[in-house]
Amino acid sequence: MRVLRTASALLLSAALAPLAVADEGMWMPQQMPQLALRLKALGFEGDPAQFADLTGFPMGAIVSLGGCTASFVSDEGLIVTNHHCVTGALQYNATPERNLLKDGYLAKTRADELPVGPGSRVWVTTGVTDVTAEIRAKLPPKIVDAALDRLLERRIKTRVAACEAGGGKRCVVAPFFGGKSYYEIAQMEIADVRLVYAPAEGIGNFGGETDNWRWPRHTGDWSFYRAYVGPDGKPATHAAANVPYKPKFRLKVSPKGASPGEVVFVAGYPGRTQRHMTFEEVREVVNWQLPRSIKLAKEQIALLEELAKQDKALAIKAAGRLRGLNNGLTNQSGVLEGLSRGGALAQKEKLQQELVAWIAADPARSTKYGGALDTLAKMQAEAEKTRDRNAWLGGLAMSSTYLSAANTLYRLSLERGKKQDLDRDEGYQQRDWTRLKEAQERMQRTIDPRLDRATFRWALQHIAELPADQRIAPIDTAAGLKPGMAKADAEKAIDGWLDKMYAGTKMADKDFRLALFEKPAKDVAATADTFVALAVSMHPMLEAQREAGRARSGAYARVRPVYMEALIEKAGGLVAPDANSTLRVTYGVVKGVDGKDGLWLKPQTTLKGIEQKHTGEGEFDAPDTHLKAIQALRAGKATPYLDPKLGDVPIDFLSTVDTTGGNSGSPTLNAKGELVGLLFDGTYDSVASNYLYEPVGTRSIHVDSRYLLWTMTEVDGAGHLVEEMNR
Amino acid sequence: MRVLRTASALLLSAALAPLAVADEGMWMPQQMPQLALRLKALGFEGDPAQFADLTGFPMGAIVSLGGCTASFVSDEGLIVTNHHCVTGALQYNATPERNLLKDGYLAKTRADELPVGPGSRVWVTTGVTDVTAEIRAKLPPKIVDAALDRLLERRIKTRVAACEAGGGKRCVVAPFFGGKSYYEIAQMEIADVRLVYAPAEGIGNFGGETDNWRWPRHTGDWSFYRAYVGPDGKPATHAAANVPYKPKFRLKVSPKGASPGEVVFVAGYPGRTQRHMTFEEVREVVNWQLPRSIKLAKEQIALLEELAKQDKALAIKAAGRLRGLNNGLTNQSGVLEGLSRGGALAQKEKLQQELVAWIAADPARSTKYGGALDTLAKMQAEAEKTRDRNAWLGGLAMSSTYLSAANTLYRLSLERGKKQDLDRDEGYQQRDWTRLKEAQERMQRTIDPRLDRATFRWALQHIAELPADQRIAPIDTAAGLKPGMAKADAEKAIDGWLDKMYAGTKMADKDFRLALFEKPAKDVAATADTFVALAVSMHPMLEAQREAGRARSGAYARVRPVYMEALIEKAGGLVAPDANSTLRVTYGVVKGVDGKDGLWLKPQTTLKGIEQKHTGEGEFDAPDTHLKAIQALRAGKATPYLDPKLGDVPIDFLSTVDTTGGNSGSPTLNAKGELVGLLFDGTYDSVASNYLYEPVGTRSIHVDSRYLLWTMTEVDGAGHLVEEMNR
Repeated sequence: MRVLRTASALLLSAALAPLAVADEGMWMPQQMPQLALRLKALGFEGDPAQFADLTGFPMGAIVSLGGCTASFVSDEGLIVTNHHCVTGALQYNATPERNLLKDGYLAKTRADELPVGPGSRVWVTTGVTDVTAEIRAKLPPKIVDAALDRLLERRIKTRVAACEAGGGKRCVVAPFFGGKSYYEIAQMEIADVRLVYAPAEGIGNFGGETDNWRWPRHTGDWSFYRAYVGPDGKPATHAAANVPYKPKFRLKVSPKGASPGEVVFVAGYPGRTQRHMTFEEVREVVNWQLPRSIKLAKEQIALLEELAKQDKALAIKAAGRLRGLNNGLTNQSGVLEGLSRGGALAQKEKLQQELVAWIAADPARSTKYGGALDTLAKMQAEAEKTRDRNAWLGGLAMSSTYLSAANTLYRLSLERGKKQDLDRDEGYQQRDWTRLKEAQERMQRTIDPRLDRATFRWALQHIAELPADQRIAPIDTAAGLKPGMAKADAEKAIDGWLDKMYAGTKMADKDFRLALFEKPAKDVAATADTFVALAVSMHPMLEAQREAGRARSGAYARVRPVYMEALIEKAGGLVAPDANSTLRVTYGVVKGVDGKDGLWLKPQTTLKGIEQKHTGEGEFDAPDTHLKAIQALRAGKATPYLDPKLGDVPIDFLSTVDTTGGNSGSPTLNAKGELVGLLFDGTYDSVASNYLYEPVGTRSIHVDSRYLLWTMTEVDGAGHLVEEMNR
Repeated sequence: MRVLRTASALLLSAALAPLAVADEGMWMPQQMPQLALRLKALGFEGDPAQFADLTGFPMGAIVSLGGCTASFVSDEGLIVTNHHCVTGALQYNATPERNLLKDGYLAKTRADELPVGPGSRVWVTTGVTDVTAEIRAKLPPKIVDAALDRLLERRIKTRVAACEAGGGKRCVVAPFFGGKSYYEIAQMEIADVRLVYAPAEGIGNFGGETDNWRWPRHTGDWSFYRAYVGPDGKPATHAAANVPYKPKFRLKVSPKGASPGEVVFVAGYPGRTQRHMTFEEVREVVNWQLPRSIKLAKEQIALLEELAKQDKALAIKAAGRLRGLNNGLTNQSGVLEGLSRGGALAQKEKLQQELVAWIAADPARSTKYGGALDTLAKMQAEAEKTRDRNAWLGGLAMSSTYLSAANTLYRLSLERGKKQDLDRDEGYQQRDWTRLKEAQERMQRTIDPRLDRATFRWALQHIAELPADQRIAPIDTAAGLKPGMAKADAEKAIDGWLDKMYAGTKMADKDFRLALFEKPAKDVAATADTFVALAVSMHPMLEAQREAGRARSGAYARVRPVYMEALIEKAGGLVAPDANSTLRVTYGVVKGVDGKDGLWLKPQTTLKGIEQKHTGEGEFDAPDTHLKAIQALRAGKATPYLDPKLGDVPIDFLSTVDTTGGNSGSPTLNAKGELVGLLFDGTYDSVASNYLYEPVGTRSIHVDSRYLLWTMTEVDGAGHLVEEMNR
């Protein structure tokens, strides 16, 4: 539970031991003023209300990259984010001769700044409006679940369409507290984004997978983009005539970094937490979802690593996916460990029992909230009956870019065929077409028949083993699979079928895909392409799954807000909503943490760790220029970025701020709103906090602004950018 | 350099920052009173003079096991030492049905106490006498080097013989400061030693090789012996009528253990440090000796592990040797790392240059000390010319127990043939015969033709590759080896020869070896045994090597004392001599240390670490009884051994005391002389201190007496021993 204790209890504990435990909460900016007393106890002397103004300082400088956060750091549209957030841009611009992933990139002049590929956007949040009343007003009392979901979706789409009218904006209506509230978030959409500077992999991803989620850490996880707009200052697609965007607000990068005990803030777009799940839902995550994901991730990693070994070009194509799989694997293993140890699941159960008892203790509460938890438990049990089939049906396209493209193109043709844009499914409306098309273009960097066939075959082997009552009929029919088939027979059938599938498709051809983009559904369906045919044959079953999903969503839309209201009332009113990719603020202090028995993880690391970890190969391969700069420092070369207490340049630091994926690249701000670092990770012991917040050991990992500035000036020759940021 | 700064500088720094850095020095007990002020600064309120009285408290309770240290902890002769010091005793009593190495052992009654095998002794130091004047008096000025060595050895043997007259004693005349001083150490020798209690491997060696030399550590490295004497109270060989020895002094085991910041002492028998080597000598260690040893250890480990895999009986026979090799490998790697990093060798060179400059700065000093360093450097350069041959010639017998036994038996027969005992070589005098015979008996537990042939073959492969000017002729002749031979040809020759060697020997037969023990040299030489014949053929070359060694020793005996006098004078007079297996005292405080960048190694570990590290297999396999006792503790079972600050039972702790191999098993004493722990290891970052003391990071590792007492009472049912110790 991420529930903050009642206000009086909170203030008492804050006064007694302000730094004893970390504070839970990825707060909505407008909630910040309510936390004033707590922030004061931590030593914050500013006005928390400043965080509530999204178009003021500092929030106006925070932007979303979609999946990552970034911030403006110059008046000329310079944006800083994490190195691991620009992998796609580096991959997009890489060639066998110019390995940007490995060597990094620095644009010496504006003209050298590289387009980061179709679909890359910078979103600047310009407004947040509470639209709960409008979305949930006068819901017909007897409407069936699926229809309720459709109605809510239609109201949301209507709001979004109105918000986006006029162009240059992207709007989202996001549910908070399980649909108890809805907020409309309007964002300016900047479409011309260029790569300015990324350090070498030996800095930006120093430590690689070995150190990922770990501490002590020595990663220089930063990179720079620049936002461009049309000469008129309005968002425009990439063009030579475009000019750097001039943000209203930008952050100042502090040459002082962050120090132990200091209060820091992180503003960004955390992706998803599930702290308000019921006990039964978390139990399913622990007992089934995570073990399954971990097993499948390991299998895929082994498969892709084997392929990457065979061929350098394949290795480049698989790199992003491997990094994602490895990252996810470590995260999921950490979550599973965290939820398995120390009775975390039992604690979740106990919290739920307390809620049940609290509801039962008062007749009015019983009337209002009674039954909600039972309903959620029953729905969960029902979903578990077909979980294997549903997981594979929904996940199959993730194993094959060919199939995924065919599915998207066929479904788009069907949705396009609808007259009213509002009738089209979310994600397939007119507003989505450009993005969908760009995705088809971007896909060309990674699509590959050998990669695709290997992973698709792997998924089909699993599908062949589904139990008799959970079969995926279109696949069985097409590939000639039967329940209970011997493994060797199934493989033979699959291989024979895949020979035909890959011989009869042009799905890897970009022009072929883009041509399908424009065609009506019947023409798409009539296309002589094996993957299109498969998509067409699977469509009814996928539609049925989506329809069942709608019914479930509708049912949740009735019951989950009731459950959440109970939680919030029990907590005294102030609860941070689960992360949902909207702009949030979290606070904490720079602080070390207990490691394994006998170890204290210090709050800061230094260049000394690079010297210790550098092996000259693999994941610990600092560039020569970097090692030389350290040698020069050791030989006495002065730098303003030395930490006097450490006697060294600090690299990364730990803090108690509460973050999750999506926060990557978020600026870490000090009490003055200066950028003192970039959030880029959490510790392994923290990741289970996505489900159940652990107040003692949870830590986020940041790179210190001094390491950024030192590397830019002493290693990478990016002094002109430092100068630009200082202007 | 292990030189302590001049007294005034020392006291000044002590007053300013008493705990800032660790104190170097494995002090001779009689030096302790000179350290009174420093000890007071650390918070010690007792009288350091108490450590100078070897027959008083606490020093009278400290004993040597030969290679390890131990102490009396009851009035009934109960002795505590490290688990890793009793491996031989466990091996000796192990059978395929009763795996004492794995399961440990507890004698419920005195009658169950097990003899620990021939040759095991307990030595109680009873006196230390300065005999420098006698040993070095009136040395003939023109005597040649080898004769000088002989003369010194004869004087030493004469002293030892006089000291040991009457029996029941063992005496040593040991050189200190490179032969500048000689002390005669007299020790009572207790020959009936029995195994009382050893915990299971999952406690006593928890963490195994993985954790060896590492921190955080969770090893319960203790075991108990009991010393028995004849009914008359005098040392006697093992007999049923023997009774427990009643020591004059015994240590009290503290139920309070040790806590951070506390002053602790370690009294014991550190084996060997080489901090007074010259720069050129250390350079040879870094550039040649250590890389060679590390390479050879790795090869042997791989070989033995492969053999151990094939056969359980072989595994038991190879276990002790493997443990020793692994331990040595980690140690040597640590020393090499320590001496290679941070310019340690350059620091050694600088210290030597300072000494040279200090000598040159004063004409009287130049006259007295000038030339000593040059001579040492020249001798070192000369020795390096034939280092490969000499290393293999001296080390070959270590690869074959068969050859080693044959060498010993033949040489013994020759030495026995001499009329005067004083003419016999050191180690082959009458006083050594029992020990040599017991070694032949003990050998039977590990000798094995497959093991022997494998390691002997490995050594011969290396010998086959020696350069043409460094050949070992008797091996070349016997095995048909030639310099520059192709590898395959050499192997073929070796294998053919080994077929004959192992077919024609009875060296694995104990009775055969013991029979040779009594025979005159000509009968031994005439024995029809291939290994005896090899020993006879190699004898002249080994004798020549020994003779060259004598010449070198004689030369060192002239020059090294001069060098040491210069060092001591420069240091202001107070210098701790290098460890030489004699009784020493070292002091320090319980204190954590910086680990790798970003890590602080806390000073204590707790049971929590067992829970974290336990995997249920291999090196991290805590016994079920142990895990259950932890569960009971977690469930609230009271224990007096809980550390209130840690909220847990402490396991191991770090201190700044200066120790080395041989100190294993030493009692760790608090300011009252109570046993608060047992020294059992040093950290990896400390091991290079054997050559060049590192005052900031050097730490010793101890097991806390509370873990010992908790395990004895809560896990192993050894409450009767705790009771005995408390009496």
